[in-house]
Amino acid sequence: MSTELTEAQKLLELRNRIDAIDDDIARLIAARARCAQDVAEVKKANLPDDARILFYRPEREAQVLRKVMEQNQGPLSNEEMARLFREIMSACLALENPVKVAYLGPEGTFTQQAALKHFGHSAVVLPFPTIDDVFREVESGAVNYGVVPVENSTEGVVNHTLDNFLGSNLKICGEVELRIHHNLLVSDVTSVNNISRIYSHSQSLAQCRNWLDAHYPKAERIAVNSNAEAARRLKGEWNAAAIAGSLAAERYELKILSEKIEDQPDNSTRFLIIGTQQVPASGVDKTSIVVSTRNEPGALHNLLEPFHRHGIDLTRVETRPSRSGVWTYVFFIDFSGHVDDDAIRQVLQDLPERVADLKLLGSYPKAVL
Amino acid sequence: MSTELTEAQKLLELRNRIDAIDDDIARLIAARARCAQDVAEVKKANLPDDARILFYRPEREAQVLRKVMEQNQGPLSNEEMARLFREIMSACLALENPVKVAYLGPEGTFTQQAALKHFGHSAVVLPFPTIDDVFREVESGAVNYGVVPVENSTEGVVNHTLDNFLGSNLKICGEVELRIHHNLLVSDVTSVNNISRIYSHSQSLAQCRNWLDAHYPKAERIAVNSNAEAARRLKGEWNAAAIAGSLAAERYELKILSEKIEDQPDNSTRFLIIGTQQVPASGVDKTSIVVSTRNEPGALHNLLEPFHRHGIDLTRVETRPSRSGVWTYVFFIDFSGHVDDDAIRQVLQDLPERVADLKLLGSYPKAVL
Repeated sequence: MSTELTEAQKLLELRNRIDAIDDDIARLIAARARCAQDVAEVKKANLPDDARILFYRPEREAQVLRKVMEQNQGPLSNEEMARLFREIMSACLALENPVKVAYLGPEGTFTQQAALKHFGHSAVVLPFPTIDDVFREVESGAVNYGVVPVENSTEGVVNHTLDNFLGSNLKICGEVELRIHHNLLVSDVTSVNNISRIYSHSQSLAQCRNWLDAHYPKAERIAVNSNAEAARRLKGEWNAAAIAGSLAAERYELKILSEKIEDQPDNSTRFLIIGTQQVPASGVDKTSIVVSTRNEPGALHNLLEPFHRHGIDLTRVETRPSRSGVWTYVFFIDFSGHVDDDAIRQVLQDLPERVADLKLLGSYPKAVL
Repeated sequence: MSTELTEAQKLLELRNRIDAIDDDIARLIAARARCAQDVAEVKKANLPDDARILFYRPEREAQVLRKVMEQNQGPLSNEEMARLFREIMSACLALENPVKVAYLGPEGTFTQQAALKHFGHSAVVLPFPTIDDVFREVESGAVNYGVVPVENSTEGVVNHTLDNFLGSNLKICGEVELRIHHNLLVSDVTSVNNISRIYSHSQSLAQCRNWLDAHYPKAERIAVNSNAEAARRLKGEWNAAAIAGSLAAERYELKILSEKIEDQPDNSTRFLIIGTQQVPASGVDKTSIVVSTRNEPGALHNLLEPFHRHGIDLTRVETRPSRSGVWTYVFFIDFSGHVDDDAIRQVLQDLPERVADLKLLGSYPKAVL
């Protein structure tokens, strides 16, 4: 009886403390929102009355999030803290003009998840059926930004996004990463030798194709609506497995038979934020360019030399056939740094004499998490 | 030049203030999370080591949210403040055991939206294809809660949820409301007389059927995937309209031809949280019961009399055929108050002599927003 009372007393005290903290948090969030309004007022003061401008600043947001994560000492994970701050910033920003974002739909896809992860739930996010539509919506000014997948979705989708930049003046204003690891899951009653069916989303099946060919060449691969759906199907099945994330194993009480079976070890799906804005440096940035070379031996090597010389870290090079001629290629190149950095300014000055054409797609904050 | 400098200075000062506020918010959120951990520790102290219990308390959460909204003086709306606090509570709670929630899928539906609105994005929410599946998952203990629509979706769905309670021991632990108003939207180039096609989601078309019969009896009604999709289709169409929310009008720059055209003026979609928990009183609660009457005249009147006598506010009565006999009915009754309130305890004592069967489905916090 006496311990129970003590427990009740302890709980009451803790709840009172939480209530006091909540009061402070609410007060501070309101104060933050008022500051955001003041920022908007100051900016509006020098504008005509009817100018609807957007107060979203990708580089500032990235800085805030990085600081929150650096200073975080738990118990919440960096990811959770960043998520809460995204939502707070999203709510404050929406007081003026909610950010309008077009994404490659339909609803419920990873791209929607990426859009909400980046812009928070106070943004207005709208699905569009094709990548072309997303580009068109941003170009027309109907929305402020677009979100499109660029890596590690079906091969066609990636290329389609890149190709769209060739005929567009849109800039890259940011990137979002969703990290995805795949596992082979089975229910308790399944043994390795019995697996004759493997469920997963078609994209996940594609991302683990080599591994499946090597380990389960005879198992039938069955594409279902989502990886969660695949995991759920296993209940009571003794001859089936599913490819899904580790969370799904926990959710559905499945055994992880093999971990990280994706063919590409760093299997994160990457998305680009496209817009009309040239984003100032945030301190940890990336730059994307597209160049076409003259059709001659060593062209790519020649093109990359200045990056090497200036010690610039190339993060990605993609080769795509040019739209303008047979056997001509364009290269999409990502590298660390901002176009305002001295080293990068020098590289971009050196490049034109080495290439047929050069287009800056944008400098933008590296994905925060 | 001098105003520009002043603007820059003002902005810098505001940003510094925001940075300081952010530091405080981050510190307080971490402190709150530590308190939540302490609460869990105190509770666990009297439990066996392997007991995984859930620390989610619906009544406490409702109280916190109501207080936040009462004290809110802007500039953020009550809805945004409540949303941010849901997310903060959701993140703190997930430190111990993330809440697992089954909802009627697929992903991207209003029911998912309701689940995330109620439990926040740190909860694990899982789609299931039927209402029966959702009930089964909760009954088996695989998830902590289920979310199912109960009002104003297609007629069949509602009844199906109610009928499920007849054969289940699950309790109602909460409710969620999503308010939905429909409007008739057209593009600038469309005049009223030209409308020959009306796009919308099939549910929205159903919810405006009478109004459409009265106003546009000859227009073809075309069901599309979502109301947003319907609105988007109008671009450049001169003889079509869409039914969608006012947000869609703003997003797609459409004209609102007629407002609030839903047949039921209070068109909110309501969802129930189902679980195994008996929720303590939060202060503003609702109770749901299901009763079957003997098949005699005046049975319903007789049944409702004690409510009237004790001044209890009935919020809803639904009549459903009983599963057990021809021409027998069961009544689902919602009323204000908690089963621990004196008046309601008395009514529940009076009822058994007036009915054939009585089952308490649960007392739970009224939807906060």
